[in-house]
Amino acid sequence: MFEVLFHHIELKVKLSEKEKATIITFLSSRKLKSRQYLLQQGDHCKYFSFVTKGLLKSYNMDEKGNEHISVFAWEGWWVSDMRSFFSGSEAKLNIEAIENSEVLMLSLSDYDALLEQVPVMERYFRILFQNSLSTKDLRLLNAATQTAEEKYLSLVGTNPELVQRVPQNLIASYLGLAPETISRIKQKLVRSPSIDSDQ
Amino acid sequence: MFEVLFHHIELKVKLSEKEKATIITFLSSRKLKSRQYLLQQGDHCKYFSFVTKGLLKSYNMDEKGNEHISVFAWEGWWVSDMRSFFSGSEAKLNIEAIENSEVLMLSLSDYDALLEQVPVMERYFRILFQNSLSTKDLRLLNAATQTAEEKYLSLVGTNPELVQRVPQNLIASYLGLAPETISRIKQKLVRSPSIDSDQ
Repeated sequence: MFEVLFHHIELKVKLSEKEKATIITFLSSRKLKSRQYLLQQGDHCKYFSFVTKGLLKSYNMDEKGNEHISVFAWEGWWVSDMRSFFSGSEAKLNIEAIENSEVLMLSLSDYDALLEQVPVMERYFRILFQNSLSTKDLRLLNAATQTAEEKYLSLVGTNPELVQRVPQNLIASYLGLAPETISRIKQKLVRSPSIDSDQ
Repeated sequence: MFEVLFHHIELKVKLSEKEKATIITFLSSRKLKSRQYLLQQGDHCKYFSFVTKGLLKSYNMDEKGNEHISVFAWEGWWVSDMRSFFSGSEAKLNIEAIENSEVLMLSLSDYDALLEQVPVMERYFRILFQNSLSTKDLRLLNAATQTAEEKYLSLVGTNPELVQRVPQNLIASYLGLAPETISRIKQKLVRSPSIDSDQ
């Protein structure tokens, strides 16, 4: 289970065996069944969690009971309500397993201690957050400027694994679209090539 | 001009005089007149820029000529098209001065060299990006879930300086609202207390 994490870290920085052994001491593991919560909206997000197996979604439930999906996280992704984790404020997000999942969890005090004891992790998290910011900037821009079809095609292009793995109604919530809109776009995409192949 | 930067850095990490002297060697400065561009959409964003004076906006111009404002940056803010800066891709954002401004600029090779030579800057940028991610997460969530009035009031609450300093039509573009919507909300807010004070 730690191999998934070390593989992910070593895509960005090199770790010695001693550093790996230290990192392990800060992590606790947890198994979640599908539909089980890792965090509930309104609680304090106590852990920054790394997914080693399975698939989770983080989402806000609005007053009308609509789900607004913020992130899908599978093997190799960190997931948390960052604002709540770092500031201690109430979580605005639920984090729920979509598949049976396993996570490694880091508390805030352990995160701070880890950065002190394994300084190369400063670089790892700096690069992780830097990449994540670039992605969020693009998502904010796409949300404001793209048509429904452009949003879906952009997701297929940049994140094909997500489109394969995540149920269509959840992708619709993630993109802020009605599920029927995605069905319509997919039908249109399927229809066009089949017309071509008949010719 | 470097004092603004060092003050900002030292809110997060401590710097020695030697480290400050090294940091200075990596930065170049530039003055911009109001309406002058620091970056134009379609170009490669070559610099990560820190504002020491003035006010800038970053925005995408869509095919219909509508401006979608991504960020306002004034003294103490970094501004760039991060995706373009780090990946070398085409910038999707314009960065334009709203007031006469001054910036300190860091190229990507100098950013990398700075992190090598002044390792404490890893921690500074890690904390900067970490805070920025928390803010962007909230902005994405608010964009999806809040009414126009909630969006405006949330901005007034979390960023009063922005509301004081930035023209109303630009705030409307930032929130994805029509300028008339903000006028209507402000009139409503002004009207309610004055009715109270008459009683």
